[in-house]
Amino acid sequence: MSHTPLRTLITKHHRVLVVGGPGDKSRAAAKHYGFKEVLRPVDIIRSNPYICPHHRYTKQEIEQWGLPPEVSKVSVDGPERNEPIDSIMVFNDPRELFSDIQIIMDLLNSEYGLLGTKRLTKRSQPSIPIIFSNNDFYWANQFRLPRLGQGAVKIAINSLYEATNDGMPLQSLTLGKPYKVSYDYAHHILIDWREKLLTGNMESEACLPELNDPPLSSPFKNVYMVGDNPESDILGGNLYGWKTILVRTGVYKDGDFVVDPSLARPNFGIVDDVKDGVMKALKANGLV
Amino acid sequence: MSHTPLRTLITKHHRVLVVGGPGDKSRAAAKHYGFKEVLRPVDIIRSNPYICPHHRYTKQEIEQWGLPPEVSKVSVDGPERNEPIDSIMVFNDPRELFSDIQIIMDLLNSEYGLLGTKRLTKRSQPSIPIIFSNNDFYWANQFRLPRLGQGAVKIAINSLYEATNDGMPLQSLTLGKPYKVSYDYAHHILIDWREKLLTGNMESEACLPELNDPPLSSPFKNVYMVGDNPESDILGGNLYGWKTILVRTGVYKDGDFVVDPSLARPNFGIVDDVKDGVMKALKANGLV
Repeated sequence: MSHTPLRTLITKHHRVLVVGGPGDKSRAAAKHYGFKEVLRPVDIIRSNPYICPHHRYTKQEIEQWGLPPEVSKVSVDGPERNEPIDSIMVFNDPRELFSDIQIIMDLLNSEYGLLGTKRLTKRSQPSIPIIFSNNDFYWANQFRLPRLGQGAVKIAINSLYEATNDGMPLQSLTLGKPYKVSYDYAHHILIDWREKLLTGNMESEACLPELNDPPLSSPFKNVYMVGDNPESDILGGNLYGWKTILVRTGVYKDGDFVVDPSLARPNFGIVDDVKDGVMKALKANGLV
Repeated sequence: MSHTPLRTLITKHHRVLVVGGPGDKSRAAAKHYGFKEVLRPVDIIRSNPYICPHHRYTKQEIEQWGLPPEVSKVSVDGPERNEPIDSIMVFNDPRELFSDIQIIMDLLNSEYGLLGTKRLTKRSQPSIPIIFSNNDFYWANQFRLPRLGQGAVKIAINSLYEATNDGMPLQSLTLGKPYKVSYDYAHHILIDWREKLLTGNMESEACLPELNDPPLSSPFKNVYMVGDNPESDILGGNLYGWKTILVRTGVYKDGDFVVDPSLARPNFGIVDDVKDGVMKALKANGLV
């Protein structure tokens, strides 16, 4: 899951706005990660639909998904019942794009995350942090051409932020591969698992490092990573200094490096599937 | 209506995609303007929902609004039943923003407006023209802060076009004030009305000049324009060389020029309402 590293934020981000995904599912995911108060745009629209007059939520969806204003505390007309939001997390592609963008822009340019307010300063740093869970401009489905994804939404939001901040670019954080933050997190998890395997104590608390912090030391001489996507998995693994193995079962197809020589190449080889990749790594270390 | 000048396009734009507005209303508007084949994104989604997997149309809306594929001829899987689209017209704020943007991007980067194809060249000129009916970044409703409008959507589309065309900016046409194209059109209409009043023949065909063409000659020494918005009405009127009169009944409020000295000022005065403006112009010409 590209947003697993978000767990590391729960100590500082208490009240968060979660955007994207089908239905109301991303709220449950954020709760599962440990965030205390998880808001969604539909809660805000339930409180005051004029904030996003073009929204396409049905009455039923608003009733079913939206928290009542006394719970969500996002009344933008009565500031006394409004509470600031700590950060915005884009978990997945927005479905209600116009209302999602409107609320995101309102918060980025608000006074300290208080909906219904507008800060006077224009700057690169938004009023509250915004975190994107991945940066894929395209993704593939049954359609014959790739479809726009979260990376495209990020570009659109960036452009509107610049337009409202004298051309200054938006400072944001993006998780997912090929970003270092994801590999740091995975590295912490690997160290944690190793510790559990060695001690036999599988019930110990999962490690929760600060986001972006690499492990202080690593017990591993080599880490082998198997991935299917040269632009994310392999590029990120190479940059992080891991051994990378590319499989033929996913995004990568033989011939891709001929069509696009700029794609990142695996430094440990191309194999048919994950099992072949694991065997190749074990063999290189004399373990099989 | 900011899109009235679109009438001038009907001779060259036979089959158009119309985007934005509530329900399916913009289709009727485009038909009323004289466009022969008017498509909407919902027709394309009815033909192949995989083109916009995040759309939020209900089954009922697709049945009710979407044309059947044999009528719309937008089958993107069977090119033999697909027909190219001549241009894209954004009439009003999109409601289904993600699917609207996806289909717009598909067409701008298509081969000659044929959905399901992708051109190989990257350039500023899109495969088919895109026309925005206005450029307002914000508009006002009951909410305490202004809401994002069509100008914001245009910026988002521009940013995605640049991202898919090696950073080259999108060439597009924007109607509405303060753009010259709207004033040229209004000027033609004024000449036409004068002709009708002089000849008494009110039934003659409305003039349909080429878009962007000013009248070859004008019978008017002065044209007076009354408007409520310094940034659109007054700015455009001043640039076009008309006498501009600003009213206090709309967007403009006394004190606005103090807060924002860069706003365009009327060159013929500020009045309480439209009637006062008309009387002021008549008086200046000794007609009252």
